[in-house]
Amino acid sequence: MSAIHPAPRITAVDTFDIRFPTSRELDGSDAMNPDPDYSAAYVVLRTDAGDELEGHGFTFTIGRGNDVQVAAINALRPHLLGRSVAELCADPGALNRDLIGDSQLRWLGPEKGVMHMAIGTVLNAVWDLAAKREGRPLWQLLAHATPEWLVSQVDFRYIADALTPEDALTLLRDGRTGLADREKDLLEHGYPGYTTSPGWLGYSDDKLIRLAKQAVADGFTQIKLKVGADLEDDIRRLRTARAAVGDGIRIAIDANQRWNIDEAVTWVNALAEFDPHWIEEPTSPDEILGHAAVRRGVAPVKVATGEHVQNRIVFKQLLQADAIDVLQIDAARVGGVNENLAILLLAARFGVPVCPHAGGVGLCELVQHLSMFDYLALSGTTEDRVIEYVDHLHEHFTSPVRMRGGHYVAPLDPGFSATMVAQSIADYRYPDGTFWAADLAGQEEAA
Amino acid sequence: MSAIHPAPRITAVDTFDIRFPTSRELDGSDAMNPDPDYSAAYVVLRTDAGDELEGHGFTFTIGRGNDVQVAAINALRPHLLGRSVAELCADPGALNRDLIGDSQLRWLGPEKGVMHMAIGTVLNAVWDLAAKREGRPLWQLLAHATPEWLVSQVDFRYIADALTPEDALTLLRDGRTGLADREKDLLEHGYPGYTTSPGWLGYSDDKLIRLAKQAVADGFTQIKLKVGADLEDDIRRLRTARAAVGDGIRIAIDANQRWNIDEAVTWVNALAEFDPHWIEEPTSPDEILGHAAVRRGVAPVKVATGEHVQNRIVFKQLLQADAIDVLQIDAARVGGVNENLAILLLAARFGVPVCPHAGGVGLCELVQHLSMFDYLALSGTTEDRVIEYVDHLHEHFTSPVRMRGGHYVAPLDPGFSATMVAQSIADYRYPDGTFWAADLAGQEEAA
Repeated sequence: MSAIHPAPRITAVDTFDIRFPTSRELDGSDAMNPDPDYSAAYVVLRTDAGDELEGHGFTFTIGRGNDVQVAAINALRPHLLGRSVAELCADPGALNRDLIGDSQLRWLGPEKGVMHMAIGTVLNAVWDLAAKREGRPLWQLLAHATPEWLVSQVDFRYIADALTPEDALTLLRDGRTGLADREKDLLEHGYPGYTTSPGWLGYSDDKLIRLAKQAVADGFTQIKLKVGADLEDDIRRLRTARAAVGDGIRIAIDANQRWNIDEAVTWVNALAEFDPHWIEEPTSPDEILGHAAVRRGVAPVKVATGEHVQNRIVFKQLLQADAIDVLQIDAARVGGVNENLAILLLAARFGVPVCPHAGGVGLCELVQHLSMFDYLALSGTTEDRVIEYVDHLHEHFTSPVRMRGGHYVAPLDPGFSATMVAQSIADYRYPDGTFWAADLAGQEEAA
Repeated sequence: MSAIHPAPRITAVDTFDIRFPTSRELDGSDAMNPDPDYSAAYVVLRTDAGDELEGHGFTFTIGRGNDVQVAAINALRPHLLGRSVAELCADPGALNRDLIGDSQLRWLGPEKGVMHMAIGTVLNAVWDLAAKREGRPLWQLLAHATPEWLVSQVDFRYIADALTPEDALTLLRDGRTGLADREKDLLEHGYPGYTTSPGWLGYSDDKLIRLAKQAVADGFTQIKLKVGADLEDDIRRLRTARAAVGDGIRIAIDANQRWNIDEAVTWVNALAEFDPHWIEEPTSPDEILGHAAVRRGVAPVKVATGEHVQNRIVFKQLLQADAIDVLQIDAARVGGVNENLAILLLAARFGVPVCPHAGGVGLCELVQHLSMFDYLALSGTTEDRVIEYVDHLHEHFTSPVRMRGGHYVAPLDPGFSATMVAQSIADYRYPDGTFWAADLAGQEEAA
């Protein structure tokens, strides 16, 4: 298999159910997710190219149901096996159309939930493979692609009332002005981040203070606190955090969908004296009218959402309804790079800054590529734009994110930074990896 | 196991992947679904009560991915096994809260797509079991339940800005006035239906004419045609249908999400001369603002949607935005009877008639119960209200729907009419049922 194949094909779509026991430390605890076990429904695309390049991708989940997500990825296998690697990497949009357009699978969404995340996962794996074959990090592949080709990667169905292909072309052509200077700046200074590490609900006030001060010392200019479980607690924690970081640091707050509309307005206004920068996920991610109402009710506090927004169609409406100040893409929730291109274009069209959701398992690794592309070739600025950063689980990736002075260092390794360390897969495969097998044996012994 | 158990528990949650080869006849073909294989991800709840009663439920799908849906139902098994049957049937809302509130599974939605349909499926199976244990059809159990108990079955999170528990209680208390008279009327005359049987895109004009005339002869006062693939074809087919049925019969049209906003308005207006009663699913089911724009653009043609609307939160906004004239619930898309109670209450609150989606496999069997409850104890009328009827696959159910003069005859068998004939399960289990095994052997022989 090591000979160079003249017309390589996809020969295998291997999937893995990988779970990390994060619930034991209350890392990641918030008002809606008290005990997540950060997990990945992971896919590897293999070829007969003989170049040892693979496409890696994953859906992030928080534990139970990761097996359902793996089953959904498996259901896409027939669309991938036997496809020409060269054609696939030259035009992931063709696969996007095939997957979104599979009329039988479409019934299970359409374009939402488990099936849609599976589609995004295999598309992201294709983009990883495409970038590896080009020998470039994905952000650079995207930033140097032609506007015409980028437009060909976007599905305009259901968004053409807000963004036509012609609009997109204009935005991308205009976005290229000054690209070389920005690329130089990016390579020197990186892309600004903010950190959620101090703010998990399960942490003590002492740990909050220590981690908040550490964040400022590390160069971050924004931190985030989880809120929404108990108002008195939130007032105390926000006062504590503000005292710890001073007035010059932005403090975002995040309710993880905890509230109805009225509650959101009341609660956020009760925290206003601590000058929260944005309120994130005040209510259901399905709420277009509701986010607009919350935004009217909590101004000048900004409204942010997106990590659970299911697709470009809902993002489009959030923008049309003036419902959000900050658009939070997630690299592994929607239909992969293709749909995120559509969403970045919509945000640019409406002039709303994109501040990605990250954390979890590998979400920082993925999403940095999209923000860096946005900076270089679309928005042209990092003003009021920050990528979430959480200091968890990066050690499981072969090209982990690197932070310097509160900024994401632009990754230089080819690909989408999606490749997990082989030993991590061997250890954390559920339920048969070495960690889980030992854990189960320990439980049985204790019983 | 046949002895009466004093405190019975759920002892098994058995699942089946059942697929019917409907694509071979083009039954069910429309602009987005050219070749559906009508399928059911089917669940049976078994108990140790010793009374031989089981709870049956299913998600309807159209083929590929039915296995993913089964995997999602399997993921809910731990929430069901060992639960008290009496407690479960006395308060399905408690299970609803546990399933919707499972913080890890929630990440896979929340409340949408594969995971949410699985939740609806097991809840529906519980309601089937509850009604069987009461010895009543579900519509009757619901219609005679107290308003207070019905309100306790509804999750008001994210809808309280449009419907409070107090609002719901008032609607249900007012809805009871005249219940006995309406129940008598329902038992005598049934509930009005309309038929989609003439209108599939794959049918010839001759077949369309024959089936349209047959529908009128059978007593239907409304038929439905699929549209959206080709405008010239649609004009011809609509003219043909109008000529066949005359002016006194309503003709609804259904685009199955085929269009963008502008296209929808243009296309429907081009068909206006044939007086279409409603345009169904003109665009994405995620479009709140878009449906409102279509409605403004096509009046007086009514706008209908709902079979793919993911949950009560989106229905609420469609109502708040004045986006629909007709609300089409589906019995197996959202979170089961509990969420459909919320949706029926929202529709009543906004004064919008409910005309359920049905057809598929067993959807007529299920949804008739919800409309009959709506008539008896909530809306109080059948004016401008019809349940979709399609004459397919009813023979696979032990209590199939019965039509008389274009009306659904009120079912009298205990339960939710969800129980499939054992032989049908044995024949159409995929891929190992007798039909599929023989089919596969035939294909191998032909090859």
